[in-house]
Amino acid sequence: MPYIRETILTTIGPDGAVHIAPLGIIEDGDLWVIAPFRPSKTLDNLEANGIAVVNYTDDALIFAGCLTGRKDWPLTALEDCAVPRLEAALAHDILTVERVETHAQRPRFHCRITGSGQHRPFTGMNRARAAIVEAAILVSRLSMLPADKIEAEVAYLNIAIEKTAGDDERQAWYWLMEKIIAHLAATEPSAEA
Amino acid sequence: MPYIRETILTTIGPDGAVHIAPLGIIEDGDLWVIAPFRPSKTLDNLEANGIAVVNYTDDALIFAGCLTGRKDWPLTALEDCAVPRLEAALAHDILTVERVETHAQRPRFHCRITGSGQHRPFTGMNRARAAIVEAAILVSRLSMLPADKIEAEVAYLNIAIEKTAGDDERQAWYWLMEKIIAHLAATEPSAEA
Repeated sequence: MPYIRETILTTIGPDGAVHIAPLGIIEDGDLWVIAPFRPSKTLDNLEANGIAVVNYTDDALIFAGCLTGRKDWPLTALEDCAVPRLEAALAHDILTVERVETHAQRPRFHCRITGSGQHRPFTGMNRARAAIVEAAILVSRLSMLPADKIEAEVAYLNIAIEKTAGDDERQAWYWLMEKIIAHLAATEPSAEA
Repeated sequence: MPYIRETILTTIGPDGAVHIAPLGIIEDGDLWVIAPFRPSKTLDNLEANGIAVVNYTDDALIFAGCLTGRKDWPLTALEDCAVPRLEAALAHDILTVERVETHAQRPRFHCRITGSGQHRPFTGMNRARAAIVEAAILVSRLSMLPADKIEAEVAYLNIAIEKTAGDDERQAWYWLMEKIIAHLAATEPSAEA
């Protein structure tokens, strides 16, 4: 399997509305592949204008927020691109679609980097931020997983939260746990069953 | 628990020899705490001259290499500091010791940031790199853990490696797995036991 960067994409619709979505981009030689599942606003926007900004951030609140209905994050206009970047991006690339592999469920947009910017210094890896990304992916797949698998993964990821989180990571964890607890409560077999 | 950045520290000894070591630095208001366990060359060097450079990198090879006997990584001299940074650092801070809490096993060096630099753009989070950091911490604690716990954690971390690693992350994983397999083989109860 190729290398995958976990990023936040910004795209714009035909009406100019900005869409913010977490998405892994897949290395493909000099190109990067964006492969969203249908239905997807990112996909619609890529089909409409062929441009996405890839925001490189390690902000746990944005990853967890996007998975829990908190999709408004401050934006900054770019000089060379109609699509804005996230204000919080440490760096960004502008991706321009070169080629599309059509597919009923998951088309693949092969993109070239046509612009870049560096905004803030990286401040080091953090185990809690990585755990938030894993928990966000878990939240996106709750309906496909049995409860015991979900509970075991939460217990494991919680170790890094307990040991290394700051306030933002604890807040992000809380948002994700609210979603997971609600899912488990809704799918739990009732006492009468 | 406070926020912890997983970093690579560079320090120098009285003879000018550079020491490279992975270490978490602990947030403490405006200060950062370095708390190495004795015996530690980083600790000796901090006691000798009170300066460390914190290298912020997400390079899986360096984290895995430092845990598996591969401790020579390219360095770059800094203008304002006798201690060099890692060439691979995306950014660095210079930490100057302000206060030491003495302790027989684990003294705590409270440090102020007295210099900083930004060198390369962050290119996004990657699940495999985070798994390498977790596996490196696992390798540092092998003697304290039962085999089934080690095997379960390796199986979990391997998912992110399989799905998102590039060549460097696969190499780093291989180095760590060699160490873990050798440990498990050496501690396995013999068939005769």
